[in-house]
Amino acid sequence: MLIIGERINGTRKRIGEAIRARDEKHIVKEATRQVEAGAGCLDVNAGTVGDREVEDMRWLVKTVRAAVDVPLCVDSPNPAALRAGLELAGDDPMVNSITGEKQRMEEIVPIVKEFGTRVVCLLMNDSGLLSGVDERTTLAAVLASALEKEDIGNERLYFDPCVKPVSTEPDQGASGLAVVSWISSELPEAHTTCGLSNVSFGLPNRSILNAAYLAMMTNAGLDSVIVDPLNETVMDSLRSARALLGQDEMCMEYITAARAK
Amino acid sequence: MLIIGERINGTRKRIGEAIRARDEKHIVKEATRQVEAGAGCLDVNAGTVGDREVEDMRWLVKTVRAAVDVPLCVDSPNPAALRAGLELAGDDPMVNSITGEKQRMEEIVPIVKEFGTRVVCLLMNDSGLLSGVDERTTLAAVLASALEKEDIGNERLYFDPCVKPVSTEPDQGASGLAVVSWISSELPEAHTTCGLSNVSFGLPNRSILNAAYLAMMTNAGLDSVIVDPLNETVMDSLRSARALLGQDEMCMEYITAARAK
Repeated sequence: MLIIGERINGTRKRIGEAIRARDEKHIVKEATRQVEAGAGCLDVNAGTVGDREVEDMRWLVKTVRAAVDVPLCVDSPNPAALRAGLELAGDDPMVNSITGEKQRMEEIVPIVKEFGTRVVCLLMNDSGLLSGVDERTTLAAVLASALEKEDIGNERLYFDPCVKPVSTEPDQGASGLAVVSWISSELPEAHTTCGLSNVSFGLPNRSILNAAYLAMMTNAGLDSVIVDPLNETVMDSLRSARALLGQDEMCMEYITAARAK
Repeated sequence: MLIIGERINGTRKRIGEAIRARDEKHIVKEATRQVEAGAGCLDVNAGTVGDREVEDMRWLVKTVRAAVDVPLCVDSPNPAALRAGLELAGDDPMVNSITGEKQRMEEIVPIVKEFGTRVVCLLMNDSGLLSGVDERTTLAAVLASALEKEDIGNERLYFDPCVKPVSTEPDQGASGLAVVSWISSELPEAHTTCGLSNVSFGLPNRSILNAAYLAMMTNAGLDSVIVDPLNETVMDSLRSARALLGQDEMCMEYITAARAK
């Protein structure tokens, strides 16, 4: 399970302040702590808009890159900011994200090709977020095929089912699991990922919902997750799920984490 | 999800002492607290052997029966103790348990018939606990068919996959899930249950493993569980799983439990 740490996101108040103040120390601490907690990749999102995002992304990626060794996931809908980030991101970066939206494809696929990156594919299109299982699995197949024609192989794709909150759409938890199961079995070279916390939006004690959902998603075949690796409830659940599913040899990761507490 | 409270078991030290001392107050407290925490059925196991078990079971069932209204699950391999318990157990009791073992079937099936009870069916046979998925699903089908011939319909059966610890058999978590999935789809009238905590035997912080496993089991179709309903970590995970899978209308059970904290 590839853990993509989500904490370095300028839309979070404290991170936004650190970016504006060019507070290297805070960003380095956020990067280091996430990697120490098990992140194998760090999402980097400046959370700003317009021209300023390019400069902010450049500073942010440079700062994170100097602090830790893991690949970075450069996160922006803005092609100029993505390029600026990727130029400094180092080895084996990811792009977050493309979607089935026409403009997004036209703008961002060339960048994925040029930099040879992996890419998060959000299963939404020009009509917005999709609710049904079939419309999302169909879109995944269409995107996988279209990107293959652009020489972007399935093994570089990370499909996110874009699960909507169960507080307003009660079938979303189950349908997100079904989308991940389908991709795991029908597009076996492709990866799956999930911005985990959206499913619990609007409900109290969200960590325990996110934790339970990650256990179920792991069983459905999820092989990466976009998550706060400092959240112990969620990480305990992930380590448990891996031990329970025979993905953690001799349960050593689980036991090591338990001893560290 | 039917929660079968497991705490009133004489092999637990404090319960064994209460049974020996005929400490009604302690047993009443254990019964009441489990029902308040959401148990819809209470397992009652005297944990003693030989002749003494009959008297102990009689006292224990009488004490629990007077304290709470939920159905009781009379738990013993001893036919005389089962009869003694069932005579006092009140409406809609369960028997815990039959297995595929010849002697157990011969001794206990007549009691299930006579008292018209529901029954836990452990998926083990004369060769002991079974490891493979196929051998357990085959046994479930054989038992379901044999019991139907005895006029014990599938709707009265609660199949337990008897999951062994992942600490020594790493594939047991996944195979237990597969057994429950199979029964849910192939024997749709039958129920499934799980003595939850066995899967985590030998590992530290067992609650978080049990919690993650219950979330995955709920997604696999499990419709009852034998569990300590006072364990908040496990119950949080169960309520989360139900909310996430659309089994908790408007997430009201989840929200109510969160507010009560």
